[in-house]
Formats: sequence, C-alpha cells, structure tokens
Amino acid sequence: MRKPGRHFLQIPGPTNVPDRILRAMDMPTMNHRSPAFGELGLRVLTGIRTIFKTERAVAIYPASGTGAWEAALVNTLSPGDKVLMYETGHFASLWRSMALRLGLEPEFIAGDWRRGVDAARLGERLAADKDHAIKAVCVVHNETSTGCTSSIPAVRAAMDAIGHPALLLVDTISSLGSIDYRHDEWGVDVTVGGSQKGLMLPPGLSFNAISAKALDAAKTATLPRAFWDWTEILASGETGYFPYTPAINLLYGLAEAIDMMHEEGLEQIFLRHDRHAEATRRAVRGWGLEILCQEPEHYSSALTAVLMPEGHSADAFRRVVEEQFDMTLGNGLSKVADRVFRIGHLGDFNDLMLMGTLSGLEMGLERAGVPYRKGGVQAALDYLAEPVN
Amino acid sequence: MRKPGRHFLQIPGPTNVPDRILRAMDMPTMNHRSPAFGELGLRVLTGIRTIFKTERAVAIYPASGTGAWEAALVNTLSPGDKVLMYETGHFASLWRSMALRLGLEPEFIAGDWRRGVDAARLGERLAADKDHAIKAVCVVHNETSTGCTSSIPAVRAAMDAIGHPALLLVDTISSLGSIDYRHDEWGVDVTVGGSQKGLMLPPGLSFNAISAKALDAAKTATLPRAFWDWTEILASGETGYFPYTPAINLLYGLAEAIDMMHEEGLEQIFLRHDRHAEATRRAVRGWGLEILCQEPEHYSSALTAVLMPEGHSADAFRRVVEEQFDMTLGNGLSKVADRVFRIGHLGDFNDLMLMGTLSGLEMGLERAGVPYRKGGVQAALDYLAEPVN
Amino acid sequence: MRKPGRHFLQIPGPTNVPDRILRAMDMPTMNHRSPAFGELGLRVLTGIRTIFKTERAVAIYPASGTGAWEAALVNTLSPGDKVLMYETGHFASLWRSMALRLGLEPEFIAGDWRRGVDAARLGERLAADKDHAIKAVCVVHNETSTGCTSSIPAVRAAMDAIGHPALLLVDTISSLGSIDYRHDEWGVDVTVGGSQKGLMLPPGLSFNAISAKALDAAKTATLPRAFWDWTEILASGETGYFPYTPAINLLYGLAEAIDMMHEEGLEQIFLRHDRHAEATRRAVRGWGLEILCQEPEHYSSALTAVLMPEGHSADAFRRVVEEQFDMTLGNGLSKVADRVFRIGHLGDFNDLMLMGTLSGLEMGLERAGVPYRKGGVQAALDYLAEPVN
Amino acid sequence: MRKPGRHFLQIPGPTNVPDRILRAMDMPTMNHRSPAFGELGLRVLTGIRTIFKTERAVAIYPASGTGAWEAALVNTLSPGDKVLMYETGHFASLWRSMALRLGLEPEFIAGDWRRGVDAARLGERLAADKDHAIKAVCVVHNETSTGCTSSIPAVRAAMDAIGHPALLLVDTISSLGSIDYRHDEWGVDVTVGGSQKGLMLPPGLSFNAISAKALDAAKTATLPRAFWDWTEILASGETGYFPYTPAINLLYGLAEAIDMMHEEGLEQIFLRHDRHAEATRRAVRGWGLEILCQEPEHYSSALTAVLMPEGHSADAFRRVVEEQFDMTLGNGLSKVADRVFRIGHLGDFNDLMLMGTLSGLEMGLERAGVPYRKGGVQAALDYLAEPVN
Repeated sequence: MRKPGRHFLQIPGPTNVPDRILRAMDMPTMNHRSPAFGELGLRVLTGIRTIFKTERAVAIYPASGTGAWEAALVNTLSPGDKVLMYETGHFASLWRSMALRLGLEPEFIAGDWRRGVDAARLGERLAADKDHAIKAVCVVHNETSTGCTSSIPAVRAAMDAIGHPALLLVDTISSLGSIDYRHDEWGVDVTVGGSQKGLMLPPGLSFNAISAKALDAAKTATLPRAFWDWTEILASGETGYFPYTPAINLLYGLAEAIDMMHEEGLEQIFLRHDRHAEATRRAVRGWGLEILCQEPEHYSSALTAVLMPEGHSADAFRRVVEEQFDMTLGNGLSKVADRVFRIGHLGDFNDLMLMGTLSGLEMGLERAGVPYRKGGVQAALDYLAEPVN
Repeated sequence: MRKPGRHFLQIPGPTNVPDRILRAMDMPTMNHRSPAFGELGLRVLTGIRTIFKTERAVAIYPASGTGAWEAALVNTLSPGDKVLMYETGHFASLWRSMALRLGLEPEFIAGDWRRGVDAARLGERLAADKDHAIKAVCVVHNETSTGCTSSIPAVRAAMDAIGHPALLLVDTISSLGSIDYRHDEWGVDVTVGGSQKGLMLPPGLSFNAISAKALDAAKTATLPRAFWDWTEILASGETGYFPYTPAINLLYGLAEAIDMMHEEGLEQIFLRHDRHAEATRRAVRGWGLEILCQEPEHYSSALTAVLMPEGHSADAFRRVVEEQFDMTLGNGLSKVADRVFRIGHLGDFNDLMLMGTLSGLEMGLERAGVPYRKGGVQAALDYLAEPVN
Repeated sequence: MRKPGRHFLQIPGPTNVPDRILRAMDMPTMNHRSPAFGELGLRVLTGIRTIFKTERAVAIYPASGTGAWEAALVNTLSPGDKVLMYETGHFASLWRSMALRLGLEPEFIAGDWRRGVDAARLGERLAADKDHAIKAVCVVHNETSTGCTSSIPAVRAAMDAIGHPALLLVDTISSLGSIDYRHDEWGVDVTVGGSQKGLMLPPGLSFNAISAKALDAAKTATLPRAFWDWTEILASGETGYFPYTPAINLLYGLAEAIDMMHEEGLEQIFLRHDRHAEATRRAVRGWGLEILCQEPEHYSSALTAVLMPEGHSADAFRRVVEEQFDMTLGNGLSKVADRVFRIGHLGDFNDLMLMGTLSGLEMGLERAGVPYRKGGVQAALDYLAEPVN
Repeated sequence: MRKPGRHFLQIPGPTNVPDRILRAMDMPTMNHRSPAFGELGLRVLTGIRTIFKTERAVAIYPASGTGAWEAALVNTLSPGDKVLMYETGHFASLWRSMALRLGLEPEFIAGDWRRGVDAARLGERLAADKDHAIKAVCVVHNETSTGCTSSIPAVRAAMDAIGHPALLLVDTISSLGSIDYRHDEWGVDVTVGGSQKGLMLPPGLSFNAISAKALDAAKTATLPRAFWDWTEILASGETGYFPYTPAINLLYGLAEAIDMMHEEGLEQIFLRHDRHAEATRRAVRGWGLEILCQEPEHYSSALTAVLMPEGHSADAFRRVVEEQFDMTLGNGLSKVADRVFRIGHLGDFNDLMLMGTLSGLEMGLERAGVPYRKGGVQAALDYLAEPVN
C-alpha cells in the first residue's frame, strides 16, 4: 500500500537530499576531459576547501566514505606501522579492522561507547611511547554509532603537550558540514569526509583533506596504493581534472551543495544543528528516556542515540515507527544492537521537520507500548519556540 | 539567506506534489497525435472517472480550475438564465461574479461564511420557483475560503423532494480526491474539479464530469462557447485524443496520480483526511482558538480556517510563521481578510507532516505574541497516537 | 521493444523541451499568493514582452494556445461583428470555426494552402468595406499546416493604405521565438502565442500581446467573457500576480526559457531557424520532391511541408519513418491529409539534430519505396558546412 | 553564448544517460539498511549477472572503473607476483602501471596500438613459462584508446592449449553492454566493468565478476586489501546489502538500466552496435581517412579511432567540431595524442544520432580544412538504409 506524504529519513546519514541538489545531478553527463569539466572541477576542488576549512588541496574520490578511510591510511603509513586508535564506538572499531587488514598494527584504547575521546588517556599513552613507534593517531570526530563527538583540539593539545610526532587522522564523515570543524586551525593531518551526511548528497563521493606533514609522510609511506594515491589526484586537481573518471553527476551536486552551504552560512548551519540537538535531548529527557552519551560536552549535534528502557527492544520500536509513521530511525550497531535507536537530525533539516520527527517518536512510544512520560514533544517545542537571535 | 529543509506548504492548494508525479512530468513532450499519446489519453480519460465516481466521460481541460467553472456554465446555460447560487464563502462569490459576467442571472442565497449550504433554505427557495425559471443550482462542495463542506446528497434530496428540474452544478476543486464525492450516485449534473489539490498535481488541468441530463441541456444552451465546448472534447476523448493541444506533461502526472490514489485506496485517503482534520481541530481548540466553521457536520477534511483572537492580525501571524518557521498558511479572503488563517491538510500528507505543521502554528503563536494556551500540539499528538484500525 | 537513443520529435510543435527547462519545472509547487511568487510573476510578465517585442503588458493564460485565440476574439468583439479572415490553411480554418461558434460573422478569403496571405487581395476586400463593417482582420503568421509564413508588415501596410480601422489580430503560435516578430513595430493589436513551439516549453501556457487600441476595443466589446477577460489579468499582472491559479510549474519553465532565449540572442535564433529551413529545402529539392509552399518569400523557417509523389501515401511514409527510425513527422491536415508530411525544424535544435532528421527522411524514402533521388542529405550537408557569418 | 539543441557527446564514454535512468536516480536517498533497500540490492545484484553472463555473484563497488581494476588485482594476487599483460593501448598501459604500483611484476607484451591481442604471441610467452611463475594474464577486451577489440575466447584457448594455470583477468569497461561478452562461457576469472559506457549510467559504479577459481585464489592472495575485499561484499550481497554505504542513487539507475537492456534485448543491442560501427567505418573510408585499427576482425563496435592525415592536428579538428557543431569527440591518448580522434558510437544510441554524428564529422573536416573526400555520410546512409533482417 502506498504511504502518503514524504518519508521521514531520520537516520544519521544518508540524509535528505534537497531538490536543488537532485535536480543539479539530473543532467546529462559530460566529457571529463573537456574545458567545461575543468571549470566544474576547479569549482568543487576550491569550494570543498572552505567546508574543511583548509587552505590546502583536498582529494575527492569517486567512492564512498570507507574508501577515504583507506586512502588516509595507505597514503601515510607503511606495513607494520603502529597506529593508536580510540574505541569511541562501532565506526572507530571498523576503522581499526581496516587498519589490521591493511597490515598495520593498531592499538585500541578501550572505550565504553558512551563518551568521546578522553584526551588525557590518549596523551598518557602517547607519553609512554618514548621512541615514537606510534606513527598515527586515528580518531572519529563524530561517532555515528553513539552520538558522541570528540574534541579534536583537545586531542591535538595532548599530542602537542608531549611533542609526539605522530600524524593525526580524523574521520569527519558524519560531522562535516554539521558540526564545526577546522582542518588547518586544529592541526589535523588527514581529515576523512563523505558526501551523504552534512553535505546533503547521495553517497558516492569521499574526501581527504591533507596537511603538508601528511604529504611529506606520503613520500616514504610504503603501503601499496594506486587508486587511492594522492600524487596524481592532487597534481591533476590543480587544473580541475582527475586522473581517472570522476563521479561526474555527483560533482554537479557537490557544486550546488557547496553553494547552498554558503548561502545559509557555515556558522549558521552549526548553530542550527546545535539547536536541533538540544531540542531532541529535551524531548528524550521529557519522555524519561536515557541518552546514550554520558558526557554533555560530547553530545553530538548531528544525531542522538537513545537507550531503550530495560526489557524493551529498540528494533521492535523502530519497526513500529517505520510501519505506522513512515519514519526510519537508525538502529543500534554491534555492542548496542537492539539496545539503542538513533535519531538523525543533520543535513537539510528545519524546525518543523524536527517536530514531525519527535512527534513520530512520542507517538511510536505510545503505540509500541514502551514505558515513557508524555511531554517530550512539548519540551522540544517550548525550547524551539524561544526566540533565536 | 537559504532556508534549510523542506518548506511546509500548508495552504489549501496548490498542495505538495509528490516526487513520483514531478518525475513523471519531467519527461520529453510527445506528439499528441501519436498512437502512444492515444494510449496515455485513454488511460487518463478512463482513470479520472474512478476519481469522480462516474461511469460517464469526463472532460479534461488544459486550463486551471476557474476555466472549468466557465465550462460548466457555458455548456449548459443560455443568456439570461436564472441560476441559484449559495454564498458559502469567497469562491461561491467568485463563481457568482463569473455567472454575472457571462450574462446569466444568478440569485445568491446569503450566508455568513461559517457553515455550508443549508439544504432546507435552498429547498424553500426552489419550492417558490413554481415555473422553474431557475435553470441551475450551483454549489461549492468544499468552500476553500472557510473550511466548510456542504452535503451534496442533502442538496439533491431537497431538489428531488419538490421535483425541481434545475441542473445541479457542483464545484469540487478543493475536495476531489480528499473528501468523499460521488458524481453519479449523488445525481450531480456537472462536477467541476482541478488538478492542484487532492490530485497532487501542479495547477494547469481542470475537469467537468457530466451527467446525461447536462449533455441534453448542452444541446439547447446558447451561451457562446468554443474552447470549453464539450462536443468535440467528448467525441475525440473516446479515442484518447483531444481536439486541441492538451497539457501533455501534466497528463503524464495525472496518469501517475491516479495510479497512486488507487495504490493507497480512495476510501483510505478520505479516512486519512478526516483524521488529520480532527487532529487539527483538537489542536486549535487546545490553543483556545476558534474554528471558523460553526457546524460540526460541515467541518472540512481538507482545510481548517481559524479565527484570530480579537485585535490580532492573521496576516501578521502568518508572516511570523513564514519567516521564522518556513511554513506558508492560507490567508483570509475578502470578508474575512486578516481575520482568519487557513491550514491546508490535504493532498500528499501524513501524520508527521501534520505534527510539523501544528508545531509551527503553536511556536508561531508564541513568537507572534498571540494569546493562546499551550497544549494544542499535545492534543493532536494524543489523538493521532491512538491506534487506527 | 525498447527503442534505443533519443526519439526525434520533428513535428512543428510540441517541440523538444530542453533539460534545463524540464528541470526548472521539476520543482515543488509554491503559493501563488506569496511574495516569492510575485517575484516570479514579475519576471515572466516582464520577460515575455521582450519575446513579443512589445512595451505593453502581455496576458499569460494557464491554458493552451486555442484558448488564447478565444481570448483575442472575446475581449475585442461583440456578437455579430464581422471579421475578415484569410484561408492560409488548417489553423486559419479552425480559427474561423471558432469565430463562427462565438457568434461572430467571419468572412473567409479563400486560399489554396500553398502560400501565405496576399496582402493586395486583403487590401482590396478592406477597401470595399466602405462603412467599416469589418471589425477585425485575423491572420495566421506562420501557418503550421502548410509551412507558409505571411508578411505581417505587408498586411499592416495594406490596412494603413486605405485607413481601415479594423483591429489586426495575429496568431504566432508556431512562429513566436522562431521567426522574427514585432508586435509593437508592426502595429498588431492582439498577438496570440503558445508555449510549446519556439518557447521550448510543454503545452499549457498561452499569451495575448495587446495594443492600446485593442484595450480600448475591450471596453465596448460585448461578447461574454470571464476566464479570458483581460481586465483583471492585466491589473493583477502589474504586481506579478494572477486573478486565479496560474500554471505555476510551467511559469518556472517560462522564466528559464526566456533566459535561455536571451542567452542565445533572439536575432541569432531567427538566423538559426532560417538556415535550418534553407538546408531542409535543399534536401527536399535534392530528393526531387516538391515543397508545398509555392512562394519562396513565404517559406516558413519553422517547418517545411512536403508533397508526396503522386500515388504514394504520406501517412504510410511517416509510419515507416516512425517505426524504423524512431522519428515523428507531422501529418497532413484536412485538405492535404495523406498528401503531405511536415518536417518541424524549430525550437531547441541544432545542425546535427537537423542532419539526423534529414538522414531519417532519406533513409525512410528508401525503405518505404518512395521514388526519390539520392543526395538530399548531401545537399543539406554541403550548405550547412559553409561558414556562417 | 548558449548552444541550442542537444550536445552530441560522442566520446567512448561516459555516454548519453537516457532520461529514464536520470529520472530513476533523481529520487530521495534511502536507508541502505532498510528492507526496501534489500529488495533493490537483490534486484541489481541478480540482474547484473545477466549482463556479464555469469551464474555467479558479481561485486558492485561504489567507485569508478579504475577501482575495479585494483579490486581484481588485490583480491587475487600477492606482492611480487608476475602478471602477463598485453600492450593493446593506453588503458592496458595504465593497468600495467597500477600493477607496478601495487608491488606486482607485470611483464608487458609490446603492441603497436593498431590491433588487439595476438593470442598466438601470448600463448608462446605462456608456453615459455614452464614453472608457472605467471600468476595472471590481464587483457583489455575493448581498448578504448584504439578501437581494437581482442578475442577473449582466443586468449582462453591459447592458455588452455598449454594448460597454463594463470588466472585470466579481463577489462570490459568500454565493451560491457555494447559488445558480446560471456564471463562464464569464456572461462574468465575476473571481469572488470564500469557503469558509464554500455550500461548508460553516469560514472560511479564498477564491477568484478568472479570465477570459482578466482575466489579460491583470493584465499591465499596476500596483497593488503580492505575496501576492495570481496569477502564481505559477496557475503552481504547474498541478502541484498553492502558492507559499507553503497552509491544508492546510482543503484536506482542501475536497476532501470538493466531493465532497459532486457527490454531491447542484449543480442539486439550487440547487433545495433555492430551495425553502427560498420556504418562509421564506411563513412571514414568514404572520406579517404584511415582507421587506426588494422585488423578487421579486431574492429571495435563501441568506438572507431581515426588517424588524421599527416600534418594535421586531431586536436585542432576536434576543437572545430566542438565549437562549431557542439559535438565532443574523444582525443588521442599518449602515444597517439593529436594523431587520432575517436568516435564513440556506444550506449543509448540510434541511427539518426549516428547520422548526426557523422554529419558533424564531415562538416567539421570541411570547416577545419582537413583534406578529405565528400561522400562519407552518404556511404553510411546508404548502408543504414538497407533493410535490417
């Protein structure tokens, strides 16, 4: 049976693609060796720097985000290199698995999936690495599985405090364009991004923002690489072209997305996400439910993961919401499977869409027979009704 | 500044056009004399009958709804003919103005814009018309300016009770596909419809469903007519073609719309609209505001018009909602200008979109400084959370 | 079975709608009472004047071209008025039928469908109308059924020579935006236009450009009118709005079309059409076939109608071309049914599309067993290969 | 200045994307973990097998074709492995460079870029490899830089004749869906494909079809791999899902493309490409120009590369065609830069588009002052006009 109206896709990515972007992509493909393509190429290659807040070249891959993780590793590291990773959740764990498969030696600082990186612990571990065996520190900025955001400046400060020379690699796949991020200012060496979250595009593009230090490291790194190799990508990127066929129609969309982000204003976008996240947390507390993230300073502005009351299945609840209110929520992954559901409130989103989302949650709790208090929606509404400067 | 997320277009039409329909129209235009067009023509000309619930041919005009009003009059009436019309609101008044301009003699039963047709009053007037000078009774099924729906079976019964031979012409522009309507069963002679409301299309198509009696009347009616003339339209329609160039791409969309309506089910669509209207009224009452329509049995399931508290401007309120929450509400028209605002809850719509809409209203009342009670959104939410069979 | 590649729609309208226009229309519908709509309205209402080359307001109807014919007549004439029309072909005949139905008294100067208006004959008839009983002269600028274009300045001159006060009404449905046309300079009173030819839009919009004299005539004209009435349309048009729901999404496309026409340049567009028409005629002569239009100065730059060799069916030929080469040609209408086929070479079109079209014709002649000489395609190619300006 | 009409994109890929496919992709993105996605996943994962003509699972990567080259190598080979490659042209050379970078030891059988693989030479080299040091033979089925197609059955036969156990890896990026190809029947171990040629999609998807022997090899292959690793991709593919975010909207298009290919029929598609290639060669010979490919049995049905007359620049010619006739031709790559131009006649293409293309070439030769004979277009036209079976 047809479900009327628009589906509410409230997962933490892929996010709703705006009509302007879909229509920009819905155009004939072009010759990626033509002068017209060169103009488009320069436009997106220059524009994307403003999103990462970097003055340097960014590599754009015709591949989804996982590929850009691999690119960050194979361009900077050599077989057997030690890398220090931090278990913020499922995606940090997946990145660690990838490092293992690629022949690196990841060390994983254990976490409980309820907070971001503890920069002090990270600093202690690095301090113990007197001979600098650790070649890279890998951190997920916004852990999509838990709704915890880590402070990258704190990580940088911890590394700087002891003068550790490891590279700093950061995954911003689910924060870029939603939560403030500054590649250059924060001294990140490789930032990994993807298209299908804050950039409001379908999946299929991913990114590496790269520091001078990372480029230097690439000169001696010996992990085999070809598709992901920065050398030709950055070289041909200077003229707006790509060394192999790019994902042309997604690049049409990227150009439009960058324009749209500047029309709204990056700082404005971040404030909007902060405000929607706060409204969501007020709703969750209003219902008497528990937010997975236990450190307020780590609350994610892109998504909120919520713990189900003991004895209730998060997946069963999500099914009720999907079937009866045509809204998709994110599921709990791995360690928290069926224990949490995740509410995406990122990308092309506004107050009324959020209120529809939270209403679907409150009605879903009622219909699914989950113990809750009424009033979460009202709490969010009261907050959002307050004037915004 | 770009406004993020989807705009909430909560006017009583044009309504949100679903992506499936937009995409169906986003196709190359074709030769309207080709066999392929003939297939499309037959598909929509046959399919549209199921929406009007008629076994007879329906005329499809490449024109917006006002044109189909004119078609209904010029095909059935002659200069100087008396027509009885009923002042349910702004659109009934406009139809009357059109009748005047076309050289008819409309008589207007006065109304207070707060209820639908009083069939008893109508019956009395017809009973007084002993010599049957009145050639047609014109009624607006769902008065878009007031949110009052009239009972067409009651009108028919009043006419039948005294055996008055006038034609019954009904405007369903804002009810067709949203509120139950039965052209044949209810004995309507001409039903006027448009594309941009319950049919979920952009404006640009309009319709006449036509009884055998209306067709007979057309044989002797002498108002000049050419573009609107049923004769050639119905004749060529039998083979799937049109006497002049049809609005081809809108017909692509119409074919898709009819399919979508049957996928959901017409009866299911009507129940959905009823339920959303009831939720909306509960919210309005929850805020302590007054619904314009005073007869519960006349409540419209397509829209709700709300009176502003004395001393407050509805238009100022609408501007706050538009600017601060990116939602468009319908304005008060003519007699009720600036006194009411109208909430459209028709077309391609669902529970969460309605909750977003009502939330925008409650937040707008707060921001605009309009006196209201909190709790309207909660009241609607409580109602919608109840299980639907 | 699916036919690969793009269909060649080589009828004289509807024409190929460019992707930019289709995508502009493939957007959410908006409130036609909103400030944003007002901006769009002003943009198209101002822009369309540049296409008609008029300084005055143009009425835009949410209806196809036939409606704008009716608008031209009912706004300026009264029942029983004499109008002088000229039989250039099928569409002139249809316009005459419409005049008859509307209660006018058309007089039809007979033609042989092989040339445009003979201004001298027209002048003679007007000269004989000493008491100025003729209230309007109606001429089709580009007769779509025959491929003959009439000189409007010659018609105007003939009227001026004898000082006849009749209004001059001109149909430019298949010439506007393809063949030079100047509403003000040529002293036309009402120009009728449509969206689906040179404007590159789907059908569903039509136009009246209106002189001051026509507006004066409207004040006393008594044909009943409502939907087509200029009064409210022009009044509300001053602010960018429409008196009833406009065909919103087609207006999105119109705004884009006007921009695109100015990007190419109107004079450039006319030269392009002239050049393609000449290439087509060279091909037709190369095949040894006869062009329907017998006056070289009346050759249409929008389409070419071709006579089939005696004993051969034009419709059978068209079917071969359709089935075997996926190209649609225009059929012969009424008097020339099955005797001619028509080649549309107007709208969004270029040299290579024309060469594809002409190749399809030459291959179709071969496959259909029609007697012809080879070399038509080569003749066109040789012409197009010559340097332009 | 705007160029009117449709651009002719006559490069050997990316090819023209049909409207049906663009519109299928122009839809909201979905949750790639939802049941609805699982259905789509199964549909494309099953459907793509019919295109490769394999009964086994095909890996679909959210990456462009170069990535699938890498996937074929890293899943089956180990550092230092010898691979035998054949210099058919530029793309074979690029694949060899990739093998080098990944730490393999490619041996390159030299070629003159004017023919496909000489299976006898390949067989001789393999016969000399008594101890089976060569682990894989890598061949480009259709060399996009030269327009030469190699016989894969001949390669297979040469390997079988001496019982050499090397894997057979074949690149079909520019042949799949255009030229007959049979992964299972021809005993290929890994077939590499891409989306932007015969599949009629934009770039962004690529494929590995995989034999049981290749899967076995993967168990012991030790090149590091993660993103490209078949294991999880094939495992999750069994249920219609992907191990990481797939390029969702491109998959919408892939589903549509596979349907469209079966609607036309694969064998019919191959015949169409053969016929268009033959027509193109007749035109080239008609102009007195030389086809790069010197072996008629190696002529490609997807593209034709043409040698410029001595002393004339192919790039200057291409610029004339681009600027004056709005058609993009493929450039000569590396060894044949500026010496050849390439005509793509693959993908969503038909007779009239080809005639437009060839007309643009003949007119371009004239305008560019390249020595040529008239009559190429006529020769192609005469051929295409002949009845097809």
